[in-house]
Parts: sequence; structure tokens; C-alpha cells
Amino acid sequence: MSTIVHKYGGTSMGSIEKIKSVAKKVILEKEKGNDVVVVVSAMGKTTNKLVDLAKEIDTNPDKREFDMLLSTGEQISISLLAIAIQSLGYEAISFTGYQAGIKTKGVHAKSEIDSIDTDRIKENLEQGKIVIVAGFQGINENGDITTLGRGGSDTTAVALAAALGCNCIIYTDVEGIYPVDPKLYPNAKKIDFISYKEMIEMSRLGAGVMETTSVEIGYKNNVPIYVASSSKDTKGTYITENKNIINYKSVIGIAIDDHTSILTIKDILSKSNDISTVFEILSNENLEIKIINQIASDNEHTSLSFVVSKGDLGCVDKAIYEIKSKLNHVEAYEDLDVSTISVVGKGINYHVINKIFNIFKENNINFKQVFTSELSISFIVDNKYKQRFIELLGNEFDL
Amino acid sequence: MSTIVHKYGGTSMGSIEKIKSVAKKVILEKEKGNDVVVVVSAMGKTTNKLVDLAKEIDTNPDKREFDMLLSTGEQISISLLAIAIQSLGYEAISFTGYQAGIKTKGVHAKSEIDSIDTDRIKENLEQGKIVIVAGFQGINENGDITTLGRGGSDTTAVALAAALGCNCIIYTDVEGIYPVDPKLYPNAKKIDFISYKEMIEMSRLGAGVMETTSVEIGYKNNVPIYVASSSKDTKGTYITENKNIINYKSVIGIAIDDHTSILTIKDILSKSNDISTVFEILSNENLEIKIINQIASDNEHTSLSFVVSKGDLGCVDKAIYEIKSKLNHVEAYEDLDVSTISVVGKGINYHVINKIFNIFKENNINFKQVFTSELSISFIVDNKYKQRFIELLGNEFDL
Repeated sequence: MSTIVHKYGGTSMGSIEKIKSVAKKVILEKEKGNDVVVVVSAMGKTTNKLVDLAKEIDTNPDKREFDMLLSTGEQISISLLAIAIQSLGYEAISFTGYQAGIKTKGVHAKSEIDSIDTDRIKENLEQGKIVIVAGFQGINENGDITTLGRGGSDTTAVALAAALGCNCIIYTDVEGIYPVDPKLYPNAKKIDFISYKEMIEMSRLGAGVMETTSVEIGYKNNVPIYVASSSKDTKGTYITENKNIINYKSVIGIAIDDHTSILTIKDILSKSNDISTVFEILSNENLEIKIINQIASDNEHTSLSFVVSKGDLGCVDKAIYEIKSKLNHVEAYEDLDVSTISVVGKGINYHVINKIFNIFKENNINFKQVFTSELSISFIVDNKYKQRFIELLGNEFDL
Repeated sequence: MSTIVHKYGGTSMGSIEKIKSVAKKVILEKEKGNDVVVVVSAMGKTTNKLVDLAKEIDTNPDKREFDMLLSTGEQISISLLAIAIQSLGYEAISFTGYQAGIKTKGVHAKSEIDSIDTDRIKENLEQGKIVIVAGFQGINENGDITTLGRGGSDTTAVALAAALGCNCIIYTDVEGIYPVDPKLYPNAKKIDFISYKEMIEMSRLGAGVMETTSVEIGYKNNVPIYVASSSKDTKGTYITENKNIINYKSVIGIAIDDHTSILTIKDILSKSNDISTVFEILSNENLEIKIINQIASDNEHTSLSFVVSKGDLGCVDKAIYEIKSKLNHVEAYEDLDVSTISVVGKGINYHVINKIFNIFKENNINFKQVFTSELSISFIVDNKYKQRFIELLGNEFDL
């Protein structure tokens, strides 16, 4: 008898009917002779509704209280799923993050799991019960309820699997991991196997199915993760170690990030304090800077270009205003109409890069920035090129 | 500086606008120089909605999981109220029952408060914060979330006031305690002072404003309770010790209980095992029996009549069926169309009783059962007499 962690997201838990289906899926696993731990998210739009309630009072609510509020969404889900499983004649017990022994550290709204005391879970599994745990939440050293931020239920599921030394299945509303978002490239062929590092790179660069943190926890703790559809009985995707992957592909997928913009500052005097003034302002505004490029236009002038996160929109405006006020000889502006398209894989070599540059040349597509990491090469392109570039890459690398 | 507990019910917390009003009321108390602990119920119809969700899955859900579910209602309220108070520039912190140190004993869905560890509350009050506590909930010795049953938030409030040694204000959607439900007797004049024991007797016999348990805790721990309107600035009602009450009234009020019915079993053979058979059946069905009357019709036959709770409806039907099957010579039936009208007060003497019996005589009203206790005399009457009997009593005793 082995233990297994299932995770069901908000869409899979979106109605009483769907919760009943989840109950049946969980029971099927139990009937195979496994001990089952189930991690669930809040039902459908519940979290959004709770957010709206708080924002009606205060657009920037205190984060401790906001966590207290949001954590109720998962608490509703766990109790309803327990009742659904029990009504089918199986024993089940639900636990909040605290009751499941999930201790967190760090700040509210994006806490990290510090440790998991699995005693109570194990004790209940031994009694033959299906154990249901609220995703996305834990308790910190003050005894306050915390939440784990975006994708937090995946993190809970993988961290629990790590603590229990078992496999983890992420049930979701898609059929697995796709090399390209099928909305943008309908021909995309589902991936059977992907390495942890490739998956982390895909997530980090904007691919949406799994959050980076959860895959990182899987990677560090060697947790086999299987991503599959909660409603269809099709084959999903295994996220695993390199050595388990047979059909090696140099390019595993394309990640698209719509949340970047480019902040350009021109005509900076090279031999002055201009550059340090600029960095001081950017640091004051807490801008999340992804890449910095410096281009010397002549001996006396230089230009800086920053790839920043669109989430920081207000901050970028403020930074531009500050820079222009303090350095009235420079030009500063933001280009919002861009996307970052990243080609990800273990084999991003000269051969692959050459193919990509041929695509640019043959199709008259320009890119504004390029940057690379161990497992990826990323291009920032104007949005007008986005769709065509994705299709060309998909065809070229058979994704 | 003294401490005070405020309690706001579901109607007072029924919308974001109302929560903002509650925040202002709490701040006003803080501004008077008091340390404030606020106990709140779930917003408006939240609890009903949660009940409906569970019942969609199972009409008789597991009580532990049901408590897990229902307790989220109050958790939503506490966080929203904390955010509302903070948005007005005051420090506030919300606590679930567990975080507030409320330990319970007994069964799920109707647990009792066993003890309260007020350390964390006191610590936060000392830091100048307004402390908000989820009503209706606690945690038991297994670490499971429990609820306190009907009126549970009142119980939380009075028990916290007892533990903190302070006064308690119950803010509600009525203006205080009325001697008769104003819906049935619009002339009813609000009571200024009522003793704990009279209030307990009123609640026990069906008057709706306060639950019995909360007043009993107030009585045992000498907690001064003030019941007042959460929206209007009118004078409310003090629930206090006898000695604090100046204007002594022999009859303080009339309690009406619509949830009773009479189960009658006729033609029982006196010298047989019939009676023990009847009691065995009633005990198997777990009927909540309020009163038993036995009338011998002749030497050989006797009749039993039970005042039971209408909530046990299905059980009564089953009991009647069982009795008829096992004792086919007896007659058994239930009379549902009755109410219990109780006259409550410290001075229910011969003089008062005489007045009541004169009302019956002069107005041709009949009663089916009568029973008394230290502070009350109760009559079960057909519903057709109910309204008139209440009016006559209200006029007679100037209520």
C-alpha cells in the first residue's frame, strides 16, 4: 500500500456536481489500495468574491486580515468534499492548513512553507481515512493564518507529497502540459514527459499550468508529479528527472509572457551622476527589473533599457516622472505593446538559435531585446508579431 | 480604562455598509477610552447558504465537517470588520475561536465552552488594538473546529466578558428585550431591567432575543449584559441581578413557544406492560419530552399525554406507528395546532394566577395543559385562541 497526493483546482471544485465527481475520483484511487491525501483549492470564483468584499471596504486591505478572509475559501471546499466522500460510504476527514501541520514563514499573502508535521495526517491515513487538506494556506510562528500566493494549492500538494515521500497528481482543467498555449497554437501536441528544470524554466517565463515554486519543491525533493485532466480520462504529463525521459527533445516548448514592458531612457550623460540618479529612482519605486541593456550611442551619451513587469505599472509612470524632473536632458518612455516569447529546452544550442534567427530574417520579424539562460532564449517582440512568431516556432520545432 | 465586549449579530453584519457602521460604533467605544473586544456572527444569510451547499450533497452531513464548513461564516465577518476598522485608522486584529483561546467540550454542532485562555486577547488589547473574535466557534481537545449551536455568538460574547471580568453589550436588530413579541402584541413596552433568572425563564420558554445558555453564563459569572439596537440610539435593556432592579414587577413578560405539539395515547391498560412499552418506544425515538400528564379514565384504563418538540416531527410519527403496531387496543395521535403561552415573573402568586383564570373564564378560552415552574406558569392552548389570549394577558399585566 502506498500513499498518493491528489490536487484539484478551483475549476475542478467549481460546483456541487463537480465536487461529487472529485469524490468519486478520489474513491477510485482509494479502491486501488492506496492511502489518499487530497489537496483542494477554493470553489470556482469564491476567492474572487472574497477579494471583492474586502476591496469594497479598502482597496489595500491589511495582509494578515486578507489571509484570514481568503483562507475560508479552501476551508469551505475541504468540508464539502469530505461530506461528499462520506455520503458515498467512505471515511474522510478534512484539515485546515494549520490542522495538517503546515507551518509557514515569510510575509502574509505570499508565505512559504517552512515545515510540515505530518503526524496527524499519517495517523488518520492509518485509520483508513481519506485525508483532505486545504491548499494555499498554513500557519506562521505567531499562530496567524497565512496564504502562499499564486498557485499556492499546487505548492501545498507537492510539499505534502515531499513530506510524505510519495507521488503527486495535479488534476486540472487542461489535459496536461502543452509545449505552447493551445489558445495561441491549436496544433500544440501534449508533452508526455518534461524534466523539472525545463518545467521550472517554462513556468518562470510565463507558461501557466504550474507555478514555479511547486515544481521547484518537486525538483528538490524528487517528487514525481503527474499533471492530468480532472474530467477526462486521457493521458497527462509526467514532470520528472532527466534520466527518466526517453524521447529527448532539444526544444520542449515556448513560454509566452504578456506581462512585460520596456522602459527606455535615452541621452544619459555617460560622464556624470546620471546613471546613479536613474538607479536610485528605480530602486525607490521598487520596480521589478528583469533585464537591463546599456547601449552607448556616442562617446558622451548612453541609453539604458529595462525590461520590467507590467504589474508595476503605476511605479513605472512615477519613475519616468521622477527621472524627467531630475534629469531634464534625458528622454524616458515606456513601451507597453510587447510580449516576451521564450524558447525553452535542454538543447538550446547554436543550431537551434540559428533556426530562430532564420525565422526572423525570412519573415521580416524584428525583436527588441534578447536574453538567454541555461535552458532558454527569450525575445521581446512587438505584439503585432507575436501570433505569427509563435506559429513559426511551433512548426519549426514540431511542438 | 476598562474592557468591554460588544456583540453584533448576523443582521447587523448583513452587508459591507452595515459592517462599516459596526466599525464606527466600535471605534466610538474605543474613543471613550475603553479596551474593546468585538464578537461577531456570520454576515446575514451566509450560514444558511453554507447549510444549503452541504445539504445539496447530503441531507445529514457529518457534524465535524459541518462545523468545519459553518465556522467559515464568522471567519469572513471578523476579517472584514478588522479591515473596516483599520481603514478608519484604528488598529484591529481578528481571531478565530481557536486563536482567541476558546476551548470547547461536548459534541459537534452543539459544543459548550469549556475554558477560555485570554492571554492573546489581553496582549493585543494592551497594544491598543481592537480585538475581533469569531462568535459561535471554538476548538475541542482533538484540535477540531466546533460550533456552539443556536445563539452561539451570544454565548461567545458573554463567556468572553466572564473570562475578562467585564461588561457585555449585545447589539441586535431589536431595541432591547420586550415583555411580549411586538409582532404579536404591538403595544409591548420595552423592559428597562430584567433579572438573569427571569431572562433565562423567558428564553427557555420561547422568547427569542437571547439564547438561554448565554444568559446562564452571565448569571453564573455575574456579567452585566446590556441588549440594545445596533442601528438606533435608543435605550436598551439591562440583564442583571435582582438587587439592581428597582421597579419590581410581578409579571415581567410572556413567552410564546410555537414549537410544541401534544402526543396523546388513550386506552392504555393500567395493569399491564403497556406503559413501559410506550416509554420504551419513546426513548428509542429520542423524543424530547417536555411534560407528561397521566389521566386515569377508569379503574382499568389510563391516558398519557406528552408535550413534545415539533422539531422531532418525524420521530413522533414513527413513535405513533410503533405504539399502534405493538399495542393495537390503544389510540394514539398528535395535536400540532397548539402553542405554549407562558406568563413569566418573580411574582407568579395566587393573585396573578387568579387573574389569568378569570381571563379564560370571561373570554371562553380553553387550555389543554398547564404546568408551572418557580418563575412561570405555562398554558398550552389551541392556536385559534393564541392571539387573543396574548392581547388579554398583555393588557391585564400592563406589559
